[in-house]
Amino acid sequence: MTRQELINQIREKKSYLCVGLDTDITKIPRHLLHLENPVVAFNKSIIDATKDLCVSYKINTAFYEAQGIQGWQAMHETLNYIPENIFTIADAKRGDIGNTSTQYAKAFFEAMHFDSVTVAPYMGKDSVKPFLDFKEKWAIVLGLTSNEGAFDFQYLKCDDQELFKHVIRNVSNWGTDENLMFVIGATKTAQLKEVRELIPNHFLLVPGVGTQGGSLEEVSKIGINQYVGLLVNASRQIIYASHAEDFAERAREEAKKLQQEMASYL
Amino acid sequence: MTRQELINQIREKKSYLCVGLDTDITKIPRHLLHLENPVVAFNKSIIDATKDLCVSYKINTAFYEAQGIQGWQAMHETLNYIPENIFTIADAKRGDIGNTSTQYAKAFFEAMHFDSVTVAPYMGKDSVKPFLDFKEKWAIVLGLTSNEGAFDFQYLKCDDQELFKHVIRNVSNWGTDENLMFVIGATKTAQLKEVRELIPNHFLLVPGVGTQGGSLEEVSKIGINQYVGLLVNASRQIIYASHAEDFAERAREEAKKLQQEMASYL
Repeated sequence: MTRQELINQIREKKSYLCVGLDTDITKIPRHLLHLENPVVAFNKSIIDATKDLCVSYKINTAFYEAQGIQGWQAMHETLNYIPENIFTIADAKRGDIGNTSTQYAKAFFEAMHFDSVTVAPYMGKDSVKPFLDFKEKWAIVLGLTSNEGAFDFQYLKCDDQELFKHVIRNVSNWGTDENLMFVIGATKTAQLKEVRELIPNHFLLVPGVGTQGGSLEEVSKIGINQYVGLLVNASRQIIYASHAEDFAERAREEAKKLQQEMASYL
Repeated sequence: MTRQELINQIREKKSYLCVGLDTDITKIPRHLLHLENPVVAFNKSIIDATKDLCVSYKINTAFYEAQGIQGWQAMHETLNYIPENIFTIADAKRGDIGNTSTQYAKAFFEAMHFDSVTVAPYMGKDSVKPFLDFKEKWAIVLGLTSNEGAFDFQYLKCDDQELFKHVIRNVSNWGTDENLMFVIGATKTAQLKEVRELIPNHFLLVPGVGTQGGSLEEVSKIGINQYVGLLVNASRQIIYASHAEDFAERAREEAKKLQQEMASYL
């Protein structure tokens, strides 16, 4: 998907919501468990209930890999069920030496047809570049993450600048704002402003709103640029809004609340 | 596998060789391509030809993921074919927020039965810890990698110490030398000495010998400790020694050369 197509979707739906499909088989409603593939059934219901309210789905690959081959199959089926005009993210945090990153890019862009993959930056340029060589595909590189462990290395002062700024500054030169985004945790609003100064034009994927405590209002006021430039992810808050038979309905209500708040900031 | 069991294998075989199964379907001998699963057939031949010469196999997950569900199946079959007393590594470079890393750990330690997984450190403690909570399983964390991109961030001076040293120093406190190893590229022998000062007792997984230019002699002289403490990986040099019908035989010759050199350092 091109940047312009993504922006058009955002304008049309008045939403920059990304719904995270971190589907854990131990957390989905029990009445689904008798089905042949409960995870796929759950995801399809969530997608049906939210697809007019969000512009992106983020599939957290770990939850599928944990289910072995059946999980990998469920990831394929889920991806194939997502409407064409919705931006898809493989939240996979991959990255390795060049020839290996090329294989990961093939896994997510060719064997499957994701629009984007999240990428870990530690191994540097040749670990990121292969993801940028695919037309209308995106690498979403970890900048500043929303977890406690972000403080272990990402804030280290390296030559008078925190590591995450080195990462953002360097990585942004390896591609363009048409094939690169950055993950910036919503719990880090103080830093979000500095990030926007470094990369005014790039899209940011912002996890951490909701369960992890980030404020949608603050993130939006600081993060939105002339291209909107934000995808805000919510996972557990939406998909586990209810564990009963009304889970899809309740997921829709949560997504709707977020979408309406987003509409007010656009 | 426990550390003592691994050390026993090394002493018995006089080898600290890890064979990397980075099996690329476009590079395996053409006569295998008519088989139902050429990758598995190739891997089984390589394993049969080298299993008395090495103490570890490293499966590079990217090459399997690139083949979709069939690739994931091939990874399972390959893993199941490796003898019990050989240390298995999922070279997957995973790492995410805590609840997600737990899912990755389940994927490699429960859905499959790898002894270890390689882990990227950028997201900090809660991204690494879940891998350390499994009995007799290992996290092998990226310290200093063998690729060109290692120079982008790993050498940044952070508070008068390079980033990779911060990583090694911090991460080594999150586990023990019985459940944590580090990846240290063989092309970085000048730094290997400093790494050994930081972590005298840990096992190091050393890629980059052979095709990538590292010297087995230098790595061994600097890296071996009282527990041996080294696993040296060779992938392409062994598995693609020949592209003809003699590929397994030639792979054995290459593995034998490395094993004999290793025996001389033990």
